[in-house]
Amino acid sequence: MTDDQDRPRQRGAYAKGIARRQEILDRAIEVFAERGADRTSLRSIASAVGVTHSALTHYFGSLEELLVAVYQESTAPERQHPDAFQPDATPVERMIESARTNREVPGLVQLYSMLVAAALEEGHPAAREFATTRFARLRADMAAVVREQQSTGRMREDVDAEAVAALVVAASDGLQTQWLLDDTAPQHEALALLDRLLRPTAR
Amino acid sequence: MTDDQDRPRQRGAYAKGIARRQEILDRAIEVFAERGADRTSLRSIASAVGVTHSALTHYFGSLEELLVAVYQESTAPERQHPDAFQPDATPVERMIESARTNREVPGLVQLYSMLVAAALEEGHPAAREFATTRFARLRADMAAVVREQQSTGRMREDVDAEAVAALVVAASDGLQTQWLLDDTAPQHEALALLDRLLRPTAR
Repeated sequence: MTDDQDRPRQRGAYAKGIARRQEILDRAIEVFAERGADRTSLRSIASAVGVTHSALTHYFGSLEELLVAVYQESTAPERQHPDAFQPDATPVERMIESARTNREVPGLVQLYSMLVAAALEEGHPAAREFATTRFARLRADMAAVVREQQSTGRMREDVDAEAVAALVVAASDGLQTQWLLDDTAPQHEALALLDRLLRPTAR
Repeated sequence: MTDDQDRPRQRGAYAKGIARRQEILDRAIEVFAERGADRTSLRSIASAVGVTHSALTHYFGSLEELLVAVYQESTAPERQHPDAFQPDATPVERMIESARTNREVPGLVQLYSMLVAAALEEGHPAAREFATTRFARLRADMAAVVREQQSTGRMREDVDAEAVAALVVAASDGLQTQWLLDDTAPQHEALALLDRLLRPTAR
């Protein structure tokens, strides 16, 4: 009886909590885009969103977890361009398209670098979980694309799919960094080169 | 006259300053290796080295500049293994050897990631100068190795030296990050693959 009576109220409170969390997250994304990763503090977000510091901690746990949520929400599939990828796009072409989309959100690439750097340090479990999961998922996705393209003759067969996947992800991340620091770095040329070296006809 | 009289004293003070700066830097490297990049504050270094906060600021300007100096000193050529590179080592082999040496210094890879992430943000001129200069120098060095190896037939000729250089540096950085987060990431396999794809006989 008590359960039945409470359930709708609990559900209502839960749904309200979810909505409130999303509302804070949407606003945090705006604050983040205006201020950049290193000037986004829990305090600045709380003040801009109009909630208390303890409300933020209630919904997100820590600034690091909030920033992970900001990154994930900003790169969610529904925010990507529809039909961004041609079905036969190579792994390199897919990484180029993702990087292009992410560059459209101010501060997002910086946030990504900051989270990965934090993940390498002790004492940043949320960043580490985020970065480790992202790389594992990306490598698995890209390895599947490699195998599919090898089976249809669009990629050379004498290469290991897991190694290609790790290489393409690493090259994409590293070249983006070099290019952001110095736009004479040959990001496009280097990615096109890797794409060419992986084709069956490369010689 | 005044100039002549002052010069030796100025020179002495200058030499003493240089020595003191080096002494602080050597100790800062130890502190850094013990604590890691994110627990190294000007305060913690000052206290461990036995100097005042303002002395540190006098010699290094800021924590960021001190950390750049720590990185540069830790990776200085005289600290590398002598004869680390075979004269005919490929660009990939050179990056592998450098990465191996750098991993021997606790916290150094984390410091590098932190400096590069800071370089991408506004308001970190020392980190930006460091990262931009490092990438430009590394790309130039690697491009020279590529051209030399192309001229002696050890690397395929149909690739642009600058693009190869940027690609190899990016792949090395990115794969190191993936491997530090997850030692099942095929860092070695991916670098070996890139090395193979760049050889003249790759097929």
